[in-house]
Amino acid sequence: MTRVGVIGVGTVGRAVVQILEENRSIITARSGDDIVVKSGVARNLAKAADLPITLSQNPYDIIDDPEIDIVVELMGGVELPLEVLKKALQNKKAVVTANKALLAYHRYELQEIAGDIPFEFEASVAGGIPIINALRDGLSANHILSIMGIMNGTCNFMLTKMMHEGAAFETVLAEAQALGYAEADPTFDIGGFDAAHKLLILASIAYGIDAKPEEILIEGIEGITQADIAFAKEFGYTIKLLGIAKRDGNEVELRVHAALVGEEAMIAKIDGVMNGISVVGDRVGETLYYGPGAGGNATASAVVANIIDIVRSGKRSPMLGFNHPLEEGLKLKPSDAIRSKYYLRLRVSDKPGILAKITQLFADHAISIEAVIQRPSETECAHLLFATHEATERSIRQMMLQLQDLDSVLETPFMIRIV
Amino acid sequence: MTRVGVIGVGTVGRAVVQILEENRSIITARSGDDIVVKSGVARNLAKAADLPITLSQNPYDIIDDPEIDIVVELMGGVELPLEVLKKALQNKKAVVTANKALLAYHRYELQEIAGDIPFEFEASVAGGIPIINALRDGLSANHILSIMGIMNGTCNFMLTKMMHEGAAFETVLAEAQALGYAEADPTFDIGGFDAAHKLLILASIAYGIDAKPEEILIEGIEGITQADIAFAKEFGYTIKLLGIAKRDGNEVELRVHAALVGEEAMIAKIDGVMNGISVVGDRVGETLYYGPGAGGNATASAVVANIIDIVRSGKRSPMLGFNHPLEEGLKLKPSDAIRSKYYLRLRVSDKPGILAKITQLFADHAISIEAVIQRPSETECAHLLFATHEATERSIRQMMLQLQDLDSVLETPFMIRIV
Repeated sequence: MTRVGVIGVGTVGRAVVQILEENRSIITARSGDDIVVKSGVARNLAKAADLPITLSQNPYDIIDDPEIDIVVELMGGVELPLEVLKKALQNKKAVVTANKALLAYHRYELQEIAGDIPFEFEASVAGGIPIINALRDGLSANHILSIMGIMNGTCNFMLTKMMHEGAAFETVLAEAQALGYAEADPTFDIGGFDAAHKLLILASIAYGIDAKPEEILIEGIEGITQADIAFAKEFGYTIKLLGIAKRDGNEVELRVHAALVGEEAMIAKIDGVMNGISVVGDRVGETLYYGPGAGGNATASAVVANIIDIVRSGKRSPMLGFNHPLEEGLKLKPSDAIRSKYYLRLRVSDKPGILAKITQLFADHAISIEAVIQRPSETECAHLLFATHEATERSIRQMMLQLQDLDSVLETPFMIRIV
Repeated sequence: MTRVGVIGVGTVGRAVVQILEENRSIITARSGDDIVVKSGVARNLAKAADLPITLSQNPYDIIDDPEIDIVVELMGGVELPLEVLKKALQNKKAVVTANKALLAYHRYELQEIAGDIPFEFEASVAGGIPIINALRDGLSANHILSIMGIMNGTCNFMLTKMMHEGAAFETVLAEAQALGYAEADPTFDIGGFDAAHKLLILASIAYGIDAKPEEILIEGIEGITQADIAFAKEFGYTIKLLGIAKRDGNEVELRVHAALVGEEAMIAKIDGVMNGISVVGDRVGETLYYGPGAGGNATASAVVANIIDIVRSGKRSPMLGFNHPLEEGLKLKPSDAIRSKYYLRLRVSDKPGILAKITQLFADHAISIEAVIQRPSETECAHLLFATHEATERSIRQMMLQLQDLDSVLETPFMIRIV
């Protein structure tokens, strides 16, 4: 059994405890071991009292507990977690953290201290998107030419609203604050600092480069007005806050700023609070990773993936992902029973009563019609195009066979599913 | 030193040899070991004669070579590679394969035989996109609710052409064949079988489910006409060939077919030969992975990533990706030297001669103007909006300071970079 201690039981910490509890069966099947959260540290003990773990307010209760194998750090801040995690590593405990500020300043120092002890941080960049996994392992054959990403959901939410709804900066900021996407003091997000911390972490993995936030170009999205939005639209651009790392000879550019991005670029299509990171490798070309960059569950998904990975340490991931079969024993659903919405195209002779005959067949099979279009095709022929509500493969196929038998249906009915 | 043997030195095999040779320094820094391709098996020896490896026509020259540590299988087919790889595993050689047909039929048998011997296959699904990595490791905390992907670039190329250019199926098929995207006999791609093989591999990792191609719903894109495209456009859909895996209670739906997809879905925005796979987890929500699904270099990128991963076996990935610093010692580019295109907004008093004065400043700093718009703002004021060609941060900032000093410039100039 592997025992975990969570320092910082807030939104993310609570989700970590819940995932390990509620998804226990699949996590055990994947990791090959039981993983339990033994204890947690919370500022407000009352708020975490419903969780089935021992609580305290002192990080050292976890760090110094000989039963704890993995320390999860979710406190935030820089100096205190640095001190705490150094001690954890000295005590030979594996570490998982989501703390991007800590890593933006102290990642190389922590790598040095960690040595062979696992130290993972997938959740520190782009929340639930496994971008560190992709960059460190999936693209390891490549020289990375560039990284260009939407790494801050607050800014992307605000810019998307400004682009699509014509709202003013102050209005969307107030809305983001009301929705909990932006803090009362929003500087860290809208000033580009949050994105910069993430960019520095990715730049280390891509380029092995140590740089601090103070050394790189960081600008935020304050000051963008509807005049800029109008210009962008007129010239086929959208506006995004981007973190960019780019290799140029033996130099690496690192910068965070708002940018006009051509509407056709994949990165331009990422809207709302979502994050997305484009990585260009010298061999693979462009790959892009999209998903939720924040939120308790999405961030905890990355934290727990790191825990599973550490539990597997020394062993490899099982070839097909499972160390033993799932208890619930999933089985293949028969194709006939699959449900979908359908689009149907019929070529019919253009005679009275034909639509009535055909729609009666829909009714006979209890398939309800969402839309229908009749278009003349050639002389005395018409195309009938239907969109249906949900039905089973069995019923749609049976109906299509009967449709085909009608004299007025001139060729085999053609069907595309709607998803 | 790790020695690799490549069975099947065609387009992908050649790229594997070249990447390991040309990216040696970064691959050694990441893997912590020298990796060399010792030998290869090719049908046509003359075609591979320029590569710095020993060649033969007999797979067993590699399988039975005691010096070989990792066997890369790129032969294609099912029965012969199955026989060859079984023997390789018996000889305790790690295996990397890109062979999706082999895995669609024999993945559980191979997992059984492999046991603790590494057997990797990232390149078998979606070429250069590290989707197996993401699904098996990055999302391991989640119950996977659904996988929905564009897994065949040939079909996506054809459907994109049909949607955007109004071309007929036969025309775009001929074009795909001329460009080398489709085989002379295109059935395997356009019939949905290639996508089905990939879907079955992903379904195993997501659900632990063993199913064969014959057991699942597979339809292709033959039969789609401009009548269908017109209907799709009218109702806000695009048409894609999708591989879908979806959990429904204790059953799993597996299906490959063309589908009408709402234009706003991320998956609908993936055009041309590119692949993209959306994965919804119960905790993380939707994540999406985009990139090139085929091509020698992109596929080889995934093969080499697997090789690096196997070389690291037992050890973990270094925390920040590098076992030792890069020889070439990348350094941070000074922010002043970064080059970009710029958008500039100025509020100016609406008087004669002002545009001349301002554009003279652009000329003085050798910043050339790509577009300019003048718009009235309030009374006697105007907005001047510029887009520039590339310039350095230094020159744009110096010019902005001088612009600000002009009497007729009424507020601090505002700038957004164009990427």
